[in-house]
Amino acid sequence: MGLFTKDIQTLDDLFLHQLQDIYYAEKQLVKALPKMAEKATDKLLKQGFLTHLDETKTHVQRLEQVFKMHGAEVKAVDCPAIDGIIEEADEVTGEVADKSVLDAALINAAQAAEHYEITRYGTLIAWAKQLGRQDCAAILAETLEEEKAADEKLSDLAETGINAEAAV
Amino acid sequence: MGLFTKDIQTLDDLFLHQLQDIYYAEKQLVKALPKMAEKATDKLLKQGFLTHLDETKTHVQRLEQVFKMHGAEVKAVDCPAIDGIIEEADEVTGEVADKSVLDAALINAAQAAEHYEITRYGTLIAWAKQLGRQDCAAILAETLEEEKAADEKLSDLAETGINAEAAV
Repeated sequence: MGLFTKDIQTLDDLFLHQLQDIYYAEKQLVKALPKMAEKATDKLLKQGFLTHLDETKTHVQRLEQVFKMHGAEVKAVDCPAIDGIIEEADEVTGEVADKSVLDAALINAAQAAEHYEITRYGTLIAWAKQLGRQDCAAILAETLEEEKAADEKLSDLAETGINAEAAV
Repeated sequence: MGLFTKDIQTLDDLFLHQLQDIYYAEKQLVKALPKMAEKATDKLLKQGFLTHLDETKTHVQRLEQVFKMHGAEVKAVDCPAIDGIIEEADEVTGEVADKSVLDAALINAAQAAEHYEITRYGTLIAWAKQLGRQDCAAILAETLEEEKAADEKLSDLAETGINAEAAV
């Protein structure tokens, strides 16, 4: 972003900026998810992280598609929010000794990332529609559904066993 | 957090840590919301931020109540996630020249904070129940409902006029 001028003049500029932000976030998650899968003890949780890693790689490709459809350069901008979420995940999970408690902490960390993505994709879809780009909105909506499903799966894993084991 | 020992041994420790994290986050939002209200142009949005500021002050008090019920010291720990979300909000809104586009950017920023809180309170409630603390869960659930309502109100404001004005 420019230091001397206000770079965002229109809703289109804001849409593009947010696209660059979530592109950065998805790419950071491609790096973070394998580490989370490695730390997880519960087999279903470990598998869940790996499945979501594959989905996340597809999300990156979908964003590249939207950049191109929008006639914009594929570009990432720093996203302090996702950096903070990942930093906090590393800090907390590094502090946990018990394996079941660690699984509960990993779920909590992953859900913070999912919710960040859910809100950003929700907004991007609303803005794309406002800009008359139903085509971009439809692609972004595919990802949003997968993020919501991943979040629900994490809640299910927590509620059907991992939280109870962590409390033992 | 300890630098030489793993401080989180039990789900109770993890619950307390997360309570300290969201306590920090709520207090940061008490500082951030008046600035967002000041930047907002749309009257309903401005008023919405001020109303949520009052709610946020209540959320801080509720957390203090939960700390006490849990027999724990009222304490905040750094929360890089909310710091990142607020930093990103400041960066993006600082780049926006047009007033209607700025309102759309402010809504986007506020919704990221709301979603962060929604996921953290959701987890805290699940953990409190697992720990047999229905009383703490009930207080946290009051806040969760207000966060969800605030998020929906922001979506409504975006969809019923602010996005359309920003696209002009």
